[in-house]
Amino acid sequence: MLRWLTAGESHGPELLAILEGLPAGVPVSLDDIRADLARRKLGYGRGARMKFEADELNLSGGVRHGLSMGSPVALRIGNTEWPKWTQVMSPEPVDPSVFETGRGAALTRPRPGHADLVGMQKYGFDEARPVLERASARETAARVALGAVARSFLAELGIRLVSHTLAIGPVRVPDGAPLPRPDDVAALDADPLRCFDPVTSERMVAEVDDAHKEGDTLGGVVEVLAYGVPPGLGSYVHGDRRLDARLAGALMGIQAIKGVEVGDGFETTRRRGSAAHDELVVGDDSIERVSDRAGGTEGGMSTGTVLRVRAGMKPIATVPHSLRTVDVSTGEAAAAHHQRSDVCAVPAAGVVAEAMVALVVADAVLEKFGGDSVAETKRNLEGYLAAIPEALRTATIEG
Amino acid sequence: MLRWLTAGESHGPELLAILEGLPAGVPVSLDDIRADLARRKLGYGRGARMKFEADELNLSGGVRHGLSMGSPVALRIGNTEWPKWTQVMSPEPVDPSVFETGRGAALTRPRPGHADLVGMQKYGFDEARPVLERASARETAARVALGAVARSFLAELGIRLVSHTLAIGPVRVPDGAPLPRPDDVAALDADPLRCFDPVTSERMVAEVDDAHKEGDTLGGVVEVLAYGVPPGLGSYVHGDRRLDARLAGALMGIQAIKGVEVGDGFETTRRRGSAAHDELVVGDDSIERVSDRAGGTEGGMSTGTVLRVRAGMKPIATVPHSLRTVDVSTGEAAAAHHQRSDVCAVPAAGVVAEAMVALVVADAVLEKFGGDSVAETKRNLEGYLAAIPEALRTATIEG
Amino acid sequence: MLRWLTAGESHGPELLAILEGLPAGVPVSLDDIRADLARRKLGYGRGARMKFEADELNLSGGVRHGLSMGSPVALRIGNTEWPKWTQVMSPEPVDPSVFETGRGAALTRPRPGHADLVGMQKYGFDEARPVLERASARETAARVALGAVARSFLAELGIRLVSHTLAIGPVRVPDGAPLPRPDDVAALDADPLRCFDPVTSERMVAEVDDAHKEGDTLGGVVEVLAYGVPPGLGSYVHGDRRLDARLAGALMGIQAIKGVEVGDGFETTRRRGSAAHDELVVGDDSIERVSDRAGGTEGGMSTGTVLRVRAGMKPIATVPHSLRTVDVSTGEAAAAHHQRSDVCAVPAAGVVAEAMVALVVADAVLEKFGGDSVAETKRNLEGYLAAIPEALRTATIEG
Amino acid sequence: MLRWLTAGESHGPELLAILEGLPAGVPVSLDDIRADLARRKLGYGRGARMKFEADELNLSGGVRHGLSMGSPVALRIGNTEWPKWTQVMSPEPVDPSVFETGRGAALTRPRPGHADLVGMQKYGFDEARPVLERASARETAARVALGAVARSFLAELGIRLVSHTLAIGPVRVPDGAPLPRPDDVAALDADPLRCFDPVTSERMVAEVDDAHKEGDTLGGVVEVLAYGVPPGLGSYVHGDRRLDARLAGALMGIQAIKGVEVGDGFETTRRRGSAAHDELVVGDDSIERVSDRAGGTEGGMSTGTVLRVRAGMKPIATVPHSLRTVDVSTGEAAAAHHQRSDVCAVPAAGVVAEAMVALVVADAVLEKFGGDSVAETKRNLEGYLAAIPEALRTATIEG
Repeated sequence: MLRWLTAGESHGPELLAILEGLPAGVPVSLDDIRADLARRKLGYGRGARMKFEADELNLSGGVRHGLSMGSPVALRIGNTEWPKWTQVMSPEPVDPSVFETGRGAALTRPRPGHADLVGMQKYGFDEARPVLERASARETAARVALGAVARSFLAELGIRLVSHTLAIGPVRVPDGAPLPRPDDVAALDADPLRCFDPVTSERMVAEVDDAHKEGDTLGGVVEVLAYGVPPGLGSYVHGDRRLDARLAGALMGIQAIKGVEVGDGFETTRRRGSAAHDELVVGDDSIERVSDRAGGTEGGMSTGTVLRVRAGMKPIATVPHSLRTVDVSTGEAAAAHHQRSDVCAVPAAGVVAEAMVALVVADAVLEKFGGDSVAETKRNLEGYLAAIPEALRTATIEG
Repeated sequence: MLRWLTAGESHGPELLAILEGLPAGVPVSLDDIRADLARRKLGYGRGARMKFEADELNLSGGVRHGLSMGSPVALRIGNTEWPKWTQVMSPEPVDPSVFETGRGAALTRPRPGHADLVGMQKYGFDEARPVLERASARETAARVALGAVARSFLAELGIRLVSHTLAIGPVRVPDGAPLPRPDDVAALDADPLRCFDPVTSERMVAEVDDAHKEGDTLGGVVEVLAYGVPPGLGSYVHGDRRLDARLAGALMGIQAIKGVEVGDGFETTRRRGSAAHDELVVGDDSIERVSDRAGGTEGGMSTGTVLRVRAGMKPIATVPHSLRTVDVSTGEAAAAHHQRSDVCAVPAAGVVAEAMVALVVADAVLEKFGGDSVAETKRNLEGYLAAIPEALRTATIEG
Repeated sequence: MLRWLTAGESHGPELLAILEGLPAGVPVSLDDIRADLARRKLGYGRGARMKFEADELNLSGGVRHGLSMGSPVALRIGNTEWPKWTQVMSPEPVDPSVFETGRGAALTRPRPGHADLVGMQKYGFDEARPVLERASARETAARVALGAVARSFLAELGIRLVSHTLAIGPVRVPDGAPLPRPDDVAALDADPLRCFDPVTSERMVAEVDDAHKEGDTLGGVVEVLAYGVPPGLGSYVHGDRRLDARLAGALMGIQAIKGVEVGDGFETTRRRGSAAHDELVVGDDSIERVSDRAGGTEGGMSTGTVLRVRAGMKPIATVPHSLRTVDVSTGEAAAAHHQRSDVCAVPAAGVVAEAMVALVVADAVLEKFGGDSVAETKRNLEGYLAAIPEALRTATIEG
Repeated sequence: MLRWLTAGESHGPELLAILEGLPAGVPVSLDDIRADLARRKLGYGRGARMKFEADELNLSGGVRHGLSMGSPVALRIGNTEWPKWTQVMSPEPVDPSVFETGRGAALTRPRPGHADLVGMQKYGFDEARPVLERASARETAARVALGAVARSFLAELGIRLVSHTLAIGPVRVPDGAPLPRPDDVAALDADPLRCFDPVTSERMVAEVDDAHKEGDTLGGVVEVLAYGVPPGLGSYVHGDRRLDARLAGALMGIQAIKGVEVGDGFETTRRRGSAAHDELVVGDDSIERVSDRAGGTEGGMSTGTVLRVRAGMKPIATVPHSLRTVDVSTGEAAAAHHQRSDVCAVPAAGVVAEAMVALVVADAVLEKFGGDSVAETKRNLEGYLAAIPEALRTATIEG
């Protein structure tokens, strides 16, 4: 079983993350993690912070000479802006004058669409600073770092992940467009919106430009694909063991996600049964599925075809022309605090979603195959595939 | 913390369910649970089994004289068809002649869209019987029974749930239609499809009739509403503590669900930021939200407005004009087993979704408020609401 | 991962237990479980209830034709006394006259050493009935039934368990006495106190007789041994993953247990380091340990030698010459309720402890080796042992 | 619910720890944590490393201006020796020449009583370095730091902890000696062995001196006391919810612990029932217990009297006159690696045990009382105590 915890505030000294349960022998490279952290900043429509937010990365535990040791893997991601925040975010008491002006001033105008107001109610704060510091999407950097580690583990087993942007606001990749494969990741990362369809990508750029001009923000939809997943991850035997349930929980647990789909998702609900499932036919050496509407799961288990899940992100809630709110220090109407100026964070959400899928799939792999070293997990996985009787065999789609 | 496990096969002697962590003093009534089990069978388009599947119910533990005792609540739901299955589903070895014909014959034609094939691969079976027995939606009766208990706990705290059908196949309630309230549940249950909009309901009936005529099946979308939820359930501090994430996992963990939304869900992803969030204004005695697009969550926490989540169900996979499959005993093409004849199970899915939401919300209530008796949980909840400073107060929407 | 929940009250209609996570293909036999339930009643010094408490057993789910199916295994253990308790323990409201006399009368004299008083405080009861019904050791029957299932799984992997009585009150098996092996279980079960040393057993009988004569009760110490455990279950990488920690938690979680030891336990704390550990020497084909002081664990992991843990049970708290208490309905001094007349339940505690060890070891096996069928788990276990380099190999002690 | 993970290797750059679930408003002070880290190094008989192992401490998340924020609390404890280990323990690949000599040389002589050999088997290593780095007791510094935070939370609720040394090897505090109270902690910390009985302490010093002279090591027994614990933490309703079970698991999860007791523990098993329990009598304003044999738990719940648990530690396994082992690179007999020279680490184990008890009790407090801020938890706790009917009230023993 994989367990993980992340910690750290948006303007604190650093983010931390610990991943417990990873087998020994997984290649873990600072460069690979850094590359994923950089991918998290991709995307047309990001504001200034993404540029100066250099991610100083440390591996504090669990890895020796490039390989995991079976012990908890610990990561730290430094915040280069920390020198500006040492007083406001100091873990130790500070002189009260700090709170009088500037960064230290109380944030009393909770932003609609954010955790600000409820967070103050729940935790008993009289201003939103301690809420937004942790609710901020900055925390996803820690998840992306953990996801990079999980992804390396999966790669050793032949499982490879791809994420791409399906929609920006109302602009959407047409149905039936080809799916990107692992080898397309570099091209995806080079696209302004991580969209695999060049025509749609151009329209997305125009949509972002328009929203920017209007002082507005955009959401969208991302899709994560996993190639090389063996059949039988997850289970139908209990609701909370279903792979789709675990993926849905993990994706909806990302900041700003409001909808999750497996395979064709809500489109499937509009189809009739005769056109909604993936029929089975006799293939060359194995049973084959003639379509992939289900997104690679049946009965809450991976089928061995491409795993495909989607997450829908709401538009950024910090809107340049501010939303209405109430100043809780005066009880009067006010304009919401406006803290950053991204138009759209959907391409980054794809990278975060990819990380969460990597963690969930890695966990499901360990649940089914066990193993305290990559060699052991791999041997168990291969032994399982080899033991499936010929008559029941299905081809695993590789990436 | 609430924990629950269910057990039992579709044609086994009974389903069992245990719920651990419920406070003492919750009214638990066999009649209330039976009423929910009956609601689970509602809906135009259900086949024969729903009619004869009488649910004999027993409370085996955790309840005395109508009140929970703090100990695990245990339920049993008998299967009136069991006498026909005593040999085929016997827990003890039987004479091999049982497997030769009829109910006992090996199921070697795995049904597309079901757990059959992957289940055989995963668990090492040479036929699908042991898979479909547990993967079947019959198991949801156990969840509905547990949900009825959770709902009674929530009712003591003023939290009331409603589920309704939003769409059957392509037929959908228009945007902006009024939401049902707790007092509307009887009317909803009387509607053939548990749809709150009479005009749409008529169109849904026609859609079911048409699909039935075509030998086809339908899916759809259900929505669950929770009234009276206090602000602050769930948390933004860690991804897996978000209320929306937990709801999404629980809903996607229901058989046949392929998509989940919170509030306006994917529609929100198409809106611009200035029209996607719920602005805050100065109300009479408290801060008010001018809309409810978010579905009653911000930052992964309940806001105190109506909690609103949706689940999209694929059409029933056992299609009357059978789908293509492969007979794994011969390796030849075949038509899938056809085990039942419902056209549409969406109204029932609403009742199951309601049960899952009840369990998740009850768990989140206990996480925030603790309590080993209803009186204690309620005192803590009321103390929390009373302690929110006037300037931060928001109105809880009651049902 | 194995999960289990038990439910049911001492005088309720039945006990229930669900075990989730067991692979398919485990032989599960009603007779084997019944045999273990009967073993739980063994022991010189048990009172009347043990005799009439016939255990009607049902397998409600998870098992077909003698083999587990991978789905949750569900058990029911009926209470033959239930007809006498239908009113007092009715899940539904009853006529208040039931509470006036006899079995239905309020239990207002909490028994020292029992959960009675604190249970009333915690759950808000004004009498002890709802507390003692669940706190009673009757619940351990459900654990023993689950343990029998776990034991069958372990037996398929060559892991066999034995429990025996080390001490009754001050009478203790001498240090260095030989350990029983799996083949000795029948002889152990035939011994009045499940003690493997005949001389000590006789002294234990005399001690029980003496306590009985004095109107007193006795505790003692039991030891559980597991043979055939592979090296490497549990882990040192995190405190809560240590096998010894999980065993200690499971054993201390049995009613009336007040102390737990691994290997020589507290005796080890009195030894000097040079005489406290198990030295390693060059054996015939493998590395050998020259002693077994550690109880088969090093660094929180099984070593492959005999796993050996102990649990110390306090004397039965319902003492025939009643302990002092307070009647909470009057506030006056009183004698504690006296509900049964066992002198000593230590032999039964050994059987319960064995069940808990079986569950913990089975869980640790699944954590390390995964597997959804016995064949898969076994293949993975054998692959692991075969892959240990010759130079690192240690002999697994078989039972 | 509290969750925590620790990470980091003994000679790595630092230890990390994350604590998730702590309410907001808990005073968290670097100085307090540093003080506890210093207490962990106390004790006569410690070797050189304890002296140079200065603990550079950082609070990386979850705390602002001296108070917790409800978000995960993250700590880092730097390793001042790290500059000597940057190559040997580098997370990134290094030049192979590092492995040729000195610190980098392969550790192929596994130490008896340590995780070395089994760890190599389990994780597939060919030397013990990656095992001992994590299995080392250095990791307990992270737990002590987390425990200091939990302790501060408990202090806000009036719960205070004390640990002391009961035995060093065969030298033991006499039965019936007075228990230390929270105000005695400074005196305890000043005692060479953290023993509260001055006469015994002198004998312990002599025992340590003798063992040192003989080139040997010592174990012992520590006891942790918690004052001010309200009645009703933990529960009898399920084995794994018992407070004693959770304490036992946490204590046995500390490196080198081989036995755990609650209250009088194994001594209780030798008593007869009439002299083993704590009778209840009518006190001045409340029900009183006339003794405290049980250690402050009944039925797996805290009783409100002093919570008292013990852990027995084996002698240090790295014995100066080395134990026999096998060199796994040659297959020949060898003397075990000898890495440090402490005679006895029992006083430190008391501090670690105190930390684990603090974490478990804090978790049980949150389970019963919930709360997202200290004020909320405290209000709920006080409301619970006030609601216990006068007739059922027992005095909480304050520290």
